[in-house]
Amino acid sequence: MGEGLIAGLDLHLPLSGTRPARSLEDAIRSLVSTGAMPVGARLPAARALAADLGVARNTVADVYARLTAEGWLEARVGAGTWVAASPGTALPLETSPAAAPTFDLRGGLVDASDFEYAAWGAHARQALAELPGASFSYPPPEGVVALRRSLAVYLARTRGVATGPDDVVIGTGFGDLLSLVCRALRDRGARRVAIEEYGHERHRRIIAAAGLEAVPLRVDADGAVVDALERLDAAAVVMTPAHQFPTGVPLTATRRRAVVDWARRADALVLEDDYDGEFRYDRRSIGALQALAPDRVVYLGTASKALAPAVGLAWAVVPAALRADVLAQREAGGASAAGIHQFVLARFIDTFAYDRAVRRRRAEFRSRRELLEALLADHAPAASLHGLAAGLQCLVRLPAGVAEKEVVDAAARRGVAVQGLVEYRFGDGGQGSPTGVVVGYGAPPPARARRALELFVEAVATAAAGG
Amino acid sequence: MGEGLIAGLDLHLPLSGTRPARSLEDAIRSLVSTGAMPVGARLPAARALAADLGVARNTVADVYARLTAEGWLEARVGAGTWVAASPGTALPLETSPAAAPTFDLRGGLVDASDFEYAAWGAHARQALAELPGASFSYPPPEGVVALRRSLAVYLARTRGVATGPDDVVIGTGFGDLLSLVCRALRDRGARRVAIEEYGHERHRRIIAAAGLEAVPLRVDADGAVVDALERLDAAAVVMTPAHQFPTGVPLTATRRRAVVDWARRADALVLEDDYDGEFRYDRRSIGALQALAPDRVVYLGTASKALAPAVGLAWAVVPAALRADVLAQREAGGASAAGIHQFVLARFIDTFAYDRAVRRRRAEFRSRRELLEALLADHAPAASLHGLAAGLQCLVRLPAGVAEKEVVDAAARRGVAVQGLVEYRFGDGGQGSPTGVVVGYGAPPPARARRALELFVEAVATAAAGG
Repeated sequence: MGEGLIAGLDLHLPLSGTRPARSLEDAIRSLVSTGAMPVGARLPAARALAADLGVARNTVADVYARLTAEGWLEARVGAGTWVAASPGTALPLETSPAAAPTFDLRGGLVDASDFEYAAWGAHARQALAELPGASFSYPPPEGVVALRRSLAVYLARTRGVATGPDDVVIGTGFGDLLSLVCRALRDRGARRVAIEEYGHERHRRIIAAAGLEAVPLRVDADGAVVDALERLDAAAVVMTPAHQFPTGVPLTATRRRAVVDWARRADALVLEDDYDGEFRYDRRSIGALQALAPDRVVYLGTASKALAPAVGLAWAVVPAALRADVLAQREAGGASAAGIHQFVLARFIDTFAYDRAVRRRRAEFRSRRELLEALLADHAPAASLHGLAAGLQCLVRLPAGVAEKEVVDAAARRGVAVQGLVEYRFGDGGQGSPTGVVVGYGAPPPARARRALELFVEAVATAAAGG
Repeated sequence: MGEGLIAGLDLHLPLSGTRPARSLEDAIRSLVSTGAMPVGARLPAARALAADLGVARNTVADVYARLTAEGWLEARVGAGTWVAASPGTALPLETSPAAAPTFDLRGGLVDASDFEYAAWGAHARQALAELPGASFSYPPPEGVVALRRSLAVYLARTRGVATGPDDVVIGTGFGDLLSLVCRALRDRGARRVAIEEYGHERHRRIIAAAGLEAVPLRVDADGAVVDALERLDAAAVVMTPAHQFPTGVPLTATRRRAVVDWARRADALVLEDDYDGEFRYDRRSIGALQALAPDRVVYLGTASKALAPAVGLAWAVVPAALRADVLAQREAGGASAAGIHQFVLARFIDTFAYDRAVRRRRAEFRSRRELLEALLADHAPAASLHGLAAGLQCLVRLPAGVAEKEVVDAAARRGVAVQGLVEYRFGDGGQGSPTGVVVGYGAPPPARARRALELFVEAVATAAAGG
């Protein structure tokens, strides 16, 4: 028995001599699942295929029956056998793009389509070839030491974080680490965590799922209003001091000191979300708040912005007094970041490929922001950009009398998804709340960024003109 | 300014013309962190290096001072500057092997040193090159559809699981998914989860950390005593029906039906831990329990045994009624498995590389078990293997009058780590509890497996001889 040809389909079935039924079954499944035999394709009659393959007719008939029972094939007496629509249907690789807007400018998203996958793949190959066998076992709960060491050096160099390898804890993403820290705090008796009143709704849900109450902390033109923490009775505050998300303002130096003082007085912690600390365009970013009080600040960063979310890696620098509790949560929660990727990222950082990725993205984001600024100046001069020249998004202040919703709707009619500041707001804003539209210019792929921004500015101009 | 040579070290420092201090600093860090400049290596005097590089003496002196402050270098007046022992020391890639026993035969571990890293790397490169850009973004909480589809086909084919892509949820490991399901049950009002009285202590901790009480379910020679579930008032039971861990017995057909009947009557769930279902040596494994009641059984599997724990991937097949709750926990918990690895595993499965990996390991494990059996027959004939010829470990029943601890201690004296059944036990065993030593023959790397088993059998023989 060698190869057989399915009549009319011109497909080769390599059959094992000893187990023809099993290998025929596997081969048909494989042809269907790869799409080589599409939905609706007719299979040859069992008798004909059996003759072609040199096996007993019953062997083929049994295989057809089994695959029919499993839903791969459909059969009707007299009508033959064909490939069923499920479960072997060729599905798209990812959730249907039809569900996504044509142009996505929502805040907090990052386009990963220009991820340097070839460099990552080359480093992965090398890391895999060089690693000792034991590296492929379970990674330690804090993460592999090679990565913690690379990160300690990188974070000290680029963000002024005061840290060594023993302070670093690796996670699968910012949310994963936020959840770990919150659960550790809850088990120590914490009840409330303050979080900036503008931000990702998901972060508030993570706090709540850890069994803590999330309470909003006011944000103004100087960043989070940290004086208000005195009255919130919170065990910790989650904040974005380098570049408030999404209003874009940095926390002032006075407030940086004040929040650390509060943490000391209240025996509380600051959870510093440094989501885009590396992406300041105009000059080197102000260093991490963590350096002011390494015993009071949990520093949190991610590889999602500089590389890609699909890398699935983030890091926390945790005060020594909290470390054991956070690691206990890591073990009790069961999740951990893929060990192989941890080694690859360590290599990426050590060879400065990570620095290059940051520089490249920073230049790209900068030019997008400049384009948006120029387009607004030309077509909607009464609107203005708010906040630092940094990061992946900015806040556009609208002309007087133009409502967020008018712009959001006008953009939607142009196929552009964008959100008003109200969408990022935690709780009621009240009358005096600032308004604006958050433009996540980091979200569209390079080839679509210009058009997305043009259409957005057209929407602003239209809304400003009362239409 | 071009390249400079550090005198005596013969190392090139590529310097940027515009920021010589920054690039010198980075270059030295890089040389230290890669080990190119080892601990204790002397740096040239600042004056000499400045002359070599064509930069101001102060530039070099400032860089030395900064790196000394960061702990990379050490300096003493008059004695010069050298590479410090921390934080730039070349650390071992992983936790020190000195901490590990010479030969590790503990149950539940898997040697990953023969992981087919080259094949994985090649598939990774191809997957990275072929994936559309959007694939590098955040994976959906349930996992990428490509992998869910591959797994649905694979699990139906190899384990008889009744499933489609929409039932599969991807996680970073078994513990991650167990935690998700337990948290979902807790939020539905569950209070207690039963778990086999022999197993991993970590699984019980995961249940407890999810806010549930773990209660032990008795295990006998027919597997878990499922009749006892009637009295335990549990919302779910965690069990290993294919091959009880670590006693090695399969659940009888009668009990398979009985546990499903219990789940229906009690409106409860069975969490089927199919940790080594693919590794039955003697014949094709009995299919997953899940197929008896897909609406009542959560099926759980992992890539850790067939590939490597460092891949960081596992899967659950979740009843439709529980799916939304499990995914809500996934989002609220923050963690998710690396998207890139999900695509790579899908390719691995679709090209049958996963099947090949299973077959190869199965043959390796089988020969190890046969070796252990032969060694015991020759040197300690009163001891015997218990349970199925399957998986990564077995239970060795000891000769009458030989205590677990005697064998464990005799093994430890020979550098072999092994654990008595009591170490896997949940709660008090009482008088009639079975005894034995669990031999995780899947744990040592191939080159050390024979010696590990020989030393273990020597320990049994010595203990049996009364010394």
